[in-house]
This record gives sequence, structure tokens and C-alpha cells, in this order.
Amino acid sequence: MTTHCIAINNIQRIGDSHAFPLDQWYVAGFSSELGDKPIARTFLNQKVVLFRTGEGQVAALEDRCCHRSLPLSCGTVEGAGVRCGYHGMLYAPSGQCIEIPGQERIPAKARVKAYAVVEKNQIIWIWMPKTEGAEPTKSAPDYPHHDDPLYKFGSGNYHYNAPWQLIHDNLLDLSHLGYVHLKTIGGNARLHMNAEMNVTQEGEQVRVVRLMPGSTPPPTYKAAWPFGDTCDRWQEIEFDLSHLRIWTGAVEPGTDAIDDPHRGGFHMRGFHGITPETATTCHYFWSMASNKHPDMPENIDEVVRQTAFTFDEDRLVIEAQYRNMLEFGEQAKWLDIHVDVGANRARRIVSKLLEQQQATDMAAA
Amino acid sequence: MTTHCIAINNIQRIGDSHAFPLDQWYVAGFSSELGDKPIARTFLNQKVVLFRTGEGQVAALEDRCCHRSLPLSCGTVEGAGVRCGYHGMLYAPSGQCIEIPGQERIPAKARVKAYAVVEKNQIIWIWMPKTEGAEPTKSAPDYPHHDDPLYKFGSGNYHYNAPWQLIHDNLLDLSHLGYVHLKTIGGNARLHMNAEMNVTQEGEQVRVVRLMPGSTPPPTYKAAWPFGDTCDRWQEIEFDLSHLRIWTGAVEPGTDAIDDPHRGGFHMRGFHGITPETATTCHYFWSMASNKHPDMPENIDEVVRQTAFTFDEDRLVIEAQYRNMLEFGEQAKWLDIHVDVGANRARRIVSKLLEQQQATDMAAA
Amino acid sequence: MTTHCIAINNIQRIGDSHAFPLDQWYVAGFSSELGDKPIARTFLNQKVVLFRTGEGQVAALEDRCCHRSLPLSCGTVEGAGVRCGYHGMLYAPSGQCIEIPGQERIPAKARVKAYAVVEKNQIIWIWMPKTEGAEPTKSAPDYPHHDDPLYKFGSGNYHYNAPWQLIHDNLLDLSHLGYVHLKTIGGNARLHMNAEMNVTQEGEQVRVVRLMPGSTPPPTYKAAWPFGDTCDRWQEIEFDLSHLRIWTGAVEPGTDAIDDPHRGGFHMRGFHGITPETATTCHYFWSMASNKHPDMPENIDEVVRQTAFTFDEDRLVIEAQYRNMLEFGEQAKWLDIHVDVGANRARRIVSKLLEQQQATDMAAA
Repeated sequence: MTTHCIAINNIQRIGDSHAFPLDQWYVAGFSSELGDKPIARTFLNQKVVLFRTGEGQVAALEDRCCHRSLPLSCGTVEGAGVRCGYHGMLYAPSGQCIEIPGQERIPAKARVKAYAVVEKNQIIWIWMPKTEGAEPTKSAPDYPHHDDPLYKFGSGNYHYNAPWQLIHDNLLDLSHLGYVHLKTIGGNARLHMNAEMNVTQEGEQVRVVRLMPGSTPPPTYKAAWPFGDTCDRWQEIEFDLSHLRIWTGAVEPGTDAIDDPHRGGFHMRGFHGITPETATTCHYFWSMASNKHPDMPENIDEVVRQTAFTFDEDRLVIEAQYRNMLEFGEQAKWLDIHVDVGANRARRIVSKLLEQQQATDMAAA
Repeated sequence: MTTHCIAINNIQRIGDSHAFPLDQWYVAGFSSELGDKPIARTFLNQKVVLFRTGEGQVAALEDRCCHRSLPLSCGTVEGAGVRCGYHGMLYAPSGQCIEIPGQERIPAKARVKAYAVVEKNQIIWIWMPKTEGAEPTKSAPDYPHHDDPLYKFGSGNYHYNAPWQLIHDNLLDLSHLGYVHLKTIGGNARLHMNAEMNVTQEGEQVRVVRLMPGSTPPPTYKAAWPFGDTCDRWQEIEFDLSHLRIWTGAVEPGTDAIDDPHRGGFHMRGFHGITPETATTCHYFWSMASNKHPDMPENIDEVVRQTAFTFDEDRLVIEAQYRNMLEFGEQAKWLDIHVDVGANRARRIVSKLLEQQQATDMAAA
Repeated sequence: MTTHCIAINNIQRIGDSHAFPLDQWYVAGFSSELGDKPIARTFLNQKVVLFRTGEGQVAALEDRCCHRSLPLSCGTVEGAGVRCGYHGMLYAPSGQCIEIPGQERIPAKARVKAYAVVEKNQIIWIWMPKTEGAEPTKSAPDYPHHDDPLYKFGSGNYHYNAPWQLIHDNLLDLSHLGYVHLKTIGGNARLHMNAEMNVTQEGEQVRVVRLMPGSTPPPTYKAAWPFGDTCDRWQEIEFDLSHLRIWTGAVEPGTDAIDDPHRGGFHMRGFHGITPETATTCHYFWSMASNKHPDMPENIDEVVRQTAFTFDEDRLVIEAQYRNMLEFGEQAKWLDIHVDVGANRARRIVSKLLEQQQATDMAAA
């Protein structure tokens, strides 16, 4: 046992994906990330190599050559697939090996697992099936704002040493802005904490709305829009299993109603794709889109830079939180306060999906 | 099991303090360390946040907000306490939460564990109770030399990747000076090894005295005092569970008797607070005080600099020793030699305290 | 269990060597490495300190002072042995302590394990016995090319975070050159993969020969020898348990036969001593010797530099391979292809030696 522990020191054992909701689309990355090199990523305990073939097709395969286990992500992308960097075996997007240099016969077993992937709205979605090789049973989510001429956007991704649901918690309660993000999108802590939070749920979606008229415009807002001393600010958060959409912004007081979806003013539309890597780590793929004020210079780059900074502040907090959770162990319970309603709804949705899945797994066994 | 091992990789699980002597004062730090930021430290497997409130009170709390587990040491110090950096809950030195922003009612459960602390002689002492919340049953130790006008002192602290008792061993036998510390306080190895060592014990205190007349003054001594080729040197070491006091120095030959507590000459008074962090790591809080020769320039800064260098040499040796102990495992026994008498006494005192404690624990169970 | 796991975090527990073939000579290093400092190395789970006494004798002892467990490799080399850097105990090459400063009597138990070592052809060989203290039952291997005036050589050593047999696999099939080493000794991938491979075995030796007439001379060859567009190239690999000898080179087409051991042309003679460190790590001691063309400047330094670069490319591939093996676990099987014949022979030899050893161990138990 000890020996085994040593052997896997610092290594995440890959394998079972059933600790996560399956038969779901998850975000695998952004279109802009797929250049001429394969990318190694682990999703739900599955090691995957992502690549775009020379012929333009996006593909996702098990990241392990079936010959001697070198990651295929150490290889090279060619017109027809990805070639292993050790002895040159070539794999098609289907997972089938289509060339073994120096050997005529290609055994049927010379293949690796393939995943269904879809490229849509400049996002790469991967289908994580309950049964290996099963086809997707629904369409990948839409996110039209990446293609909407009203907005420009930038994106990034952060690796988290923390389980994915801690990011859900963070995003479903933006009252932390006044404590964590004072340099960018923070604003007035007390106003945030005291604003009424409206939480609704429809099926497996949770929606949290907080309206803050008479708010102090935070630095990021002031840099992008000619606000005065106050603004009427809104936060609309929509949770879906694989990602959250957060629409925030503000209008000048006395102009549009802040609960009118056709309101004007400054808009920030955040996309937050959170994909479990392992039980204790995850990927956070984010984009931020905003609109430009007609009389102010284009500043999407600055908005994205500040967003990257802000999301990194969250990462520091969440990783410190998780480290502390590990150190104190399970007996250290959480005390709920008023801001936790939305996050707790999302947790119940994930729990229910997992319970259903386990029930089916057991029935099948 | 494997999964669990991975999850806690590089993480020290916090919890049981009963592997260490309890109902004892331990050193938590020096007064000079407590500025306007909280400090995170682990003592006897308990994660603690230390801070001085804006009102000047030193406090020590469990380092975990009861809401969502962020370390309170990631927060900020205010007049009345420490405020969590995630959602702003404010805690008083008593451990009670005294504000939840945006929520009127504060549940009684909104509190964290508090530790008794005392600030005395510019040292912060923390009481580690056997029963959670129990009051100290004795006074914190005195160390008047920090406040004695004859001396100036400087202090530091080192984190050790080694169990605390290896530092006791090191300090209770200074014969290693001739091998480890030739650049500073070393001196003549053979003279050290051959000098008679007088070991006495009174209750839970051990005293080791070694007198070395006709010794070669080492570099640190020569830099501080106008010694000639030889000096009469003494080493007096007093072990207490939580700290050692080491009084070393030398007089010019033919002046004072080296076993007279009122002797003149050059004096170095070392304070060595050794506080277990976990079973395998510890804190080493040290200070060094020395007196000034009337005809030589003030050089306490140089004495402290050389002390810091010397104690770092010890750290390298002790960490290498412990690493080797781990690698060779328990079957690699130690062979005692003549210099080990004092250290072995101290080990017996710690063992006896732990045995008594376990007996009481079992009787209570 | 959990606690134990933490304690040994990042630590390789030292101990049983029976997971490796014993009663064998292994490479411990090169003569050029042994200067005036002791060297700490672990072979087959045994921590060893290597040193050359002031009197010139090469010695290998257990790397742990029997007093307080400091590694002897933290000490200093003297005329008669190695002195511990903590309290000064001095050990002879026999492992016996021959001085305890300040103590007259030296207990018989004051000794550490000693290993038989031989220095031969500028290589240090260490005998890893099945029974502690048993004498070698055969001579250390010869490697005369280090002393052959036809060649000059340079050497290096790499530490591998991978088990030793993955390097055997790599060296016994040079078809990876066309994928991994294009910048130095690569050449034409398809020519390599399609060349006939001749594998023979004699006792516990495996020999792999591949002849590639009409090959493209790779960069390292062109820098050392005035080849034109093609050359007739050979690769002769000899596997022994403790090391491989690889004789590669090329002649100009139409001159000597490439399977004639007296052929001329450009020669590279690689020595590859692979010594297990632990079950999951190993040492790779290599040297590269080559001959000089009469009309070209001496370039052994450049050959060695390119060799070091090439072998580092292998290390990156093999460590990535092993990491992936750990992550995918044992259920991820390997599919053999045509190039694996030699490597599989070597694996069977090692397996057979281990089976025999286990049988003897069990009979003895």
C-alpha cells in the first residue's frame, strides 16, 4: 500500500468518470486554442488529446498510443490525424490507427477511444457519454453572444486546484465582489450584501437576479462607460450544468429600467464553462464580451485584461478555501447565510443527477 | 484508499493535537511579527490565525471561517477583530462572529475556536489546552533577558521539515559546533568533544553545562570582543518543554571564573522556542542577545546575522537527518555515544508527559 | 494509514532490493565523477555514499551514520575514509567506524554496510549482493573502448523518473530515431522502420542488428565525416543486464561492407549503464566514443554535446510515457508491433532472473 502510494505520488489516477454527471456536453476549450499542436486535457478523469486535423476537423481521442503508452499529445498533427511521437503510429479522428510505419498489417485492436466533439459559437464542446462510444442524445448548448455584432469578446482558461462546484458557488453569489474584487468590478460591499436576491429555478437551470439601483460604478465600469457617481446596476446569473451565463451591467440613473432585457447602458456578458478535470481539480473556460460606448474608445482588451485579473483573484480565494477544506477535513461543517440560496440550488441539481445516475448504474449491475 | 491519498497529496491533515504534550504554553511568535496583517500558523496540528486587533489585543482563532471555510488569515484586521475575505463575516477575539453583512440575525453557531494567548517579554505565548476552551492553569514562562538593558537582541524564525525533538537533540549537545559551525561559533572540534559535560535534571528541566578553558575564540566571538589567542569558554543549556535557554560566552583567561554566574566577558543568550507544527514539522522561534564591549563598536546586528546563518546550518543538517530517517525507516536504529546524555534526558521527559496524557485520555474514554 | 502516507510524501522508502536482479554488477558512476566530495546515490533501493579516500581507494557505504542517521554524503572525505558532518564519526571503506571524537571505546556495532566496488575502464561498478556482505562471484564487465586509442569519449548521467526497463525498450529499438531525434542522429524515418532487424540471443545477452544501406546521413554524422548524400549505415546493439553497448556508424557507399566488424568509416560507440534507483526511477550513465576523420578537425566535444541533447530527448519521451502509464494504470495494455522483438527478449531475460531469484528466496524462507 505504501509502495503504491509512492508510485502515484503527484499523479492523478485516470479512470472512472461516473463521479460526474454523464451524457452531458462539457466545454473542452475555445476554437482559438486549436492551432497546429495537439492539446492534452483531462475531462472527468479521462485523459484526452484535442486537435484539429490538417483537413480542419476537430477531434478528441484518448491521449495514449496503444503501442507503448506515449501521450498522443506529444505527437504531431497531420492532414488525416495525429501521429505518435515515439514510433510514428498515425490515428484518425475515429480513433482507428491508419498507419504503422514499417508494418503492413494494422491489427483491428490498433485503436484508441474517440469522443464526440462539436465546434459551435467558437466553443469546442465534448460529449461525455455514460456508455463508451455512445452517440450524443441532445445538441450542444448555444451561446450566440460570441457571434453577436453588438459585442466583442476575449477568452481565457484557468486550471483550478479545487473541485468544480466551488466555482459554481462563487459565481452564483456575486456578493463576494465587494470583498474580493474591489480593484475591478467590486463596488460597494454593503450595497451588494443588502440588495435583494431573486432566485428562481426551471428544470435543471437556476437563475439568480440582483438589482442594485444607486450603486457606485466600479473601476472596470468607469473605464468603459461615462458613468457619473452612481449607476443602476444589475446582475443576472444563469446556471446550467456545464456552464454559467452571467449578464451584468448598468444604466445611468433615470434612463432605462434595470430589469428590462432591452435596457441600454454598459453590458458585460460572461461565459463560464466549468469542466471537472478530476474530483479535486477543474478547468475554468471563460469569455467576457462587452459593448462599446459610441463616444469612448474601444476598450474590450482592457475589459478582458481586468476580467482575467478578477477571475484570478477568485482562483486564489477558491484554492485557499479548498486547501483549508482538505486540511480541516469533513467534520468542519459549513454554516449557511442569506447569500447561499442560489448556490445551494445548483448543488441540489448536481446531487440529483448523480443520484439518478448511480441508481441506473446499480440497476445495470 | 488510493483516491484519498491523492486528494490529500501535499496536504497536512489538521486535527488531533494529543500526540503532543498539552496544557502547556508554546511560543506562537514574537511581538515584532504582529503588524497589520493576520498570520497563519499551525501549532500541534491546529491551524491558527494570529492577529493584533486595531485596539491592540493579540488574539488567536481557528483559521477557518465557519461559512465557507476560507482561512481567516486571508482576511483583514479591523478594530474589533478579523474580517473574512470572501463574504465579510467579522470575528471578535473571543471567536464569536459579530457581523454578517446583509443579515441581521447572527446564529449562535457562527463562531470559531479561540485560544488563550499572552504577550510577555516580547514573546507571544499560546496555551494549547487538553480540553477545548479550557483556561490556562499556570502562567506563561518568563524570559527577562529580552527586557534587560545589559543586552540587545534580534530574533527570527525558521520552519523545519523535521519533528521538533530533533532540534532539542541538536541544542542539548553543542559538540556539533566544531563540525557544523566552523564559520561562526565553531571553535576547536576536539576540545569540544573532550570537554566534560555536566548534566543535571530538576523536575521537567534539564541542564547541561560544558566548560572549556583555554579554547580558541571562534569568529563570532572575535568580532565582538577583543579576545587574544585563547579564552575560557562556557556553555549552559537549560531545557524546558516549550523552549531552551542557552547562555554561552567566554572570559579572557586569568580573569573571572567561568562557572561564576556573575562572570564578565562576552555573553550570548539564546532563546529557542520550538513549537511542533505537525508530527513531522515544527517552528523554531529564536532570539539572540549579546552584550557590547565598552571599547568596541555596537555589533548586535552582526551577531544576529551570524546567528541566523548558524541556525540555518543546523536546519540543513537536521532536515537532511530527518529525510534520511524517513528513507531508512524505523528499523535503522541509533547508536548512542557520550554526547547524548542531555538530549536523552529531554526525550524521556517528553515521553513521560505523553504517557501520562495518554493514560488520562484512556481513563476519560 | 493516511498519516503514514503524509509522512513519506515525496520520499522514496529505502529497503528491499529483491525486486531487482541481485548478485550482479551495476554501474555506480564514472571515475571522472569522484573528486574530493562524497556522492549520494541510491541503487536498487539502497542508499549509498560513494567516495574516493585521500589514499585513492574507491568505496561505497550505506549512506547513514549509525549515530543519528545523518547521510554520510553530507560529511567530508579524509585520507582514511569519510567523516560524518554532525558529530565527526569517521568510517573506513570497510564500513567500520574508526574514530568517535571524544570517546575512547568504539563499539563493534559502530559500523555501516559496505558494498564491493571495482574501478575498471574508467567506470565504477558496484556489486549488489543477494546476501548482505557476500563477495562478488564474477568479474565486473569489460568495456575496453574507453581505453582504445582509436576513440575519444565523453560521458554524462541522467536521472530518470521512470523504471529502468523503459530505457532498455528504447535502446533495443532504434526505429524511434526517425521520430524523436531528427535534429541529431535521426535520418530517414521510413528507411529505419522498413530496414530488416536481425535479433539474436545468447544466454542472457540480446543482439539487435539493423543495416541501412543508402541511408541519408543525419546531422551528427555529417558534422564528423565528409559523407555525401547517402551512406551505408549500421546499428549493432548488445544488451546485458547492467548495460547496453551500441555500435553505430556508416561507411561511404561502395567502400566497406557494413556488416564487417573491421569496416572503416565513422563510428560511434555508446555505453549505456542503466541502474535501477527505485521501482519507479533509475540512473542512466552513458558515454559516447567516436573516431576522427583524418582530414577533419577533432569534434568529439561536438559529438558528445549532440549525444547529450539526443539522450535528453529520449528522457522527455520516456518520462512522458511512464507518467501516462501511471495515469492510465495497469488495465491499459500494450499492443506489440514489428519493432518490439529485441526489447521483448530483454524483458523476458529480466523476468526470468527475477523468477529464479524469487524461487530461491522462497526456498530459503
